[in-house]
Amino acid sequence: MIYFDNSSTTAPSQAAIDAVKGMLVNFGNPSSLHRLGAAAQTEMDEAREAVAGAVGASPSEIFFTSGGTEANNTAITGGAAARRRRGNKIVITAVEHDSVLMPAKNLESAGFRVETVAPGQDGTIDPSAFERAVDGDTVLVSCMMVNNETGAVFPVEKLRDIVVRAGAPALIHVDAVQALGKLRISVQDIGCDMMTLSAHKIHGIKGCGALYVKKGVTVRPFMLGGGQERGFRAGTEATAAIAAFGAACRELNPAEDAAKMLEVKEELLRGLAGIPQVIVNSPGLSAPHIINFSVPGYRSETLLHAFEARDIYVSSGSACKKGALSHVLIAQGLSRERADSAVRVSLCRDNTPDEAARFIAALKEIISTVAHVRARS
Amino acid sequence: MIYFDNSSTTAPSQAAIDAVKGMLVNFGNPSSLHRLGAAAQTEMDEAREAVAGAVGASPSEIFFTSGGTEANNTAITGGAAARRRRGNKIVITAVEHDSVLMPAKNLESAGFRVETVAPGQDGTIDPSAFERAVDGDTVLVSCMMVNNETGAVFPVEKLRDIVVRAGAPALIHVDAVQALGKLRISVQDIGCDMMTLSAHKIHGIKGCGALYVKKGVTVRPFMLGGGQERGFRAGTEATAAIAAFGAACRELNPAEDAAKMLEVKEELLRGLAGIPQVIVNSPGLSAPHIINFSVPGYRSETLLHAFEARDIYVSSGSACKKGALSHVLIAQGLSRERADSAVRVSLCRDNTPDEAARFIAALKEIISTVAHVRARS
Repeated sequence: MIYFDNSSTTAPSQAAIDAVKGMLVNFGNPSSLHRLGAAAQTEMDEAREAVAGAVGASPSEIFFTSGGTEANNTAITGGAAARRRRGNKIVITAVEHDSVLMPAKNLESAGFRVETVAPGQDGTIDPSAFERAVDGDTVLVSCMMVNNETGAVFPVEKLRDIVVRAGAPALIHVDAVQALGKLRISVQDIGCDMMTLSAHKIHGIKGCGALYVKKGVTVRPFMLGGGQERGFRAGTEATAAIAAFGAACRELNPAEDAAKMLEVKEELLRGLAGIPQVIVNSPGLSAPHIINFSVPGYRSETLLHAFEARDIYVSSGSACKKGALSHVLIAQGLSRERADSAVRVSLCRDNTPDEAARFIAALKEIISTVAHVRARS
Repeated sequence: MIYFDNSSTTAPSQAAIDAVKGMLVNFGNPSSLHRLGAAAQTEMDEAREAVAGAVGASPSEIFFTSGGTEANNTAITGGAAARRRRGNKIVITAVEHDSVLMPAKNLESAGFRVETVAPGQDGTIDPSAFERAVDGDTVLVSCMMVNNETGAVFPVEKLRDIVVRAGAPALIHVDAVQALGKLRISVQDIGCDMMTLSAHKIHGIKGCGALYVKKGVTVRPFMLGGGQERGFRAGTEATAAIAAFGAACRELNPAEDAAKMLEVKEELLRGLAGIPQVIVNSPGLSAPHIINFSVPGYRSETLLHAFEARDIYVSSGSACKKGALSHVLIAQGLSRERADSAVRVSLCRDNTPDEAARFIAALKEIISTVAHVRARS
């Protein structure tokens, strides 16, 4: 089996699995005042340190959530609410994840104005697009670090200067779900106020993420109730998933892992360049683990299932969209036909150049086979 | 060890553990269109059937969440939003969990009026209190089935008639987190529109719950983003925790389990009746698994740690409150001293009458020891 769908989700690492198993025994509620609670709390504290360490934050700046979606919902609704008296404009890219786009859209009914910044046809975003959009009325700027469909790397480290120069009272939020473990991340260097992270994209398990909130920054809580997470996020903590997140973060080695993934990616790009029917949709400036390409005339789903028949797993854009046409590729200005034939290959540190070669061979075979079938019908 | 803190959280059952381990291997994203996604989706479907079966619902009426807190947040904010054009009154009890109380309070700033129904000093709530509160302007009524601190059973099955007689355009929400597995639950018999459930209170794992939403009832989504859970709840599903929830639901046998817990509870009540310093705060009409009592003059936390020293685990009220004075006991009209010396014992099907006897012996010893220490100081 070749698993090239790591941006949808990853296989839990052995360390994450061991952490989960440990918490099935260490089952206390971290809020309990007795030692079973304290034991669970200790594991959470260690996980929080590991997650903080992965992005250069302090542990007290990390708040666990049920995943990237909740972290994004919290950042957008809670960030806008915290600054609503200072302005009513929100600036995001047109290619954010739906868990940013939809909460932002939802805020329009509360009187906010949302301006979207579109990528160029190559998938990248020029910082000047943010410069034009951010003004003195802007209270929130949200931009992903790596686009989940194309792997495009966005200029998040330029946002702080842009916000300062515009005199905007804006919080800066960075969705780093697809960047964690692939690029070096420093919340200080980026200068963001909030950052979204997810566990299951880095070999943790599903049901856990985190929101970084810079010390001193006020964000309105989203999930209300008990005083968990120092009052910021209510709900009994998903201790097993949190421990696994910590274990997964401790294993991250972005420099070394990126080098491994780049080797595989370059093998793939070389192979794709040799197939005339293929157009690569990912920009040159892209993360080491994602390649998006189209084979116009061949529907994504057809290609995906043809790969599946060969025990190779890829996706057609984002898993979260379950087959819907990609808003990302459309925003890049690609034709519907090209968007409709897109395939996303997404890597992890465990993939190999040999898998890349086998993938390219399979793609060639699929194109000829499927073409043959089409010719007959 | 005697674990009498099952209303804080329970030890995962072997079936739940096995389900989690299965999903660490079956790691696909249910939204992925290939067979690894489908395999995860199949496990989720089976879990959904099991959860639905536990409350007499259809699988299509069950939406997985990150836990009881998210389900309550969704029911209150989403339920009120869905009916906001038809009225602006919300009726809840004063002793709901904070994950109901706080979202309701938050809705006041959106123009809703929240009326709370208080319990009597015995902890029970008379249906007439709801009759007085619910009117033609009421769009949401929320009442827990079993109070998490006292075990009081509330008259949720009376709410439908009350709402109908008042001509209220109200949705009825029942927080059944503490009832699941202990009382027989039928959403049809109760006649509610929404019901909150949690996995980790019934030997599943933390990080998973569900909201039942009756077929045909519209509730505004709370977590926005990808189209998961048929568009109602965004976010990659916590597949391991969901599979464990299903496994835990399949093991539930409320009639048999309640009989076991009642036997232990009666042993405890007999023992407590023989200790003159003890006052029981739980009403006669209470769930089989919770006893709340006070030993005035002895602080809850002191008692809790004295038990802990004997490898016995109980709590002072709700774990979620982490030592804060109980709003539940205060709402019942108990004195601060009595509320401040409250201990909650909460059982599961694995506890035994022998544990109850050992607990009573320990309590007697603690009262005499702590009294002795107090006399010396």
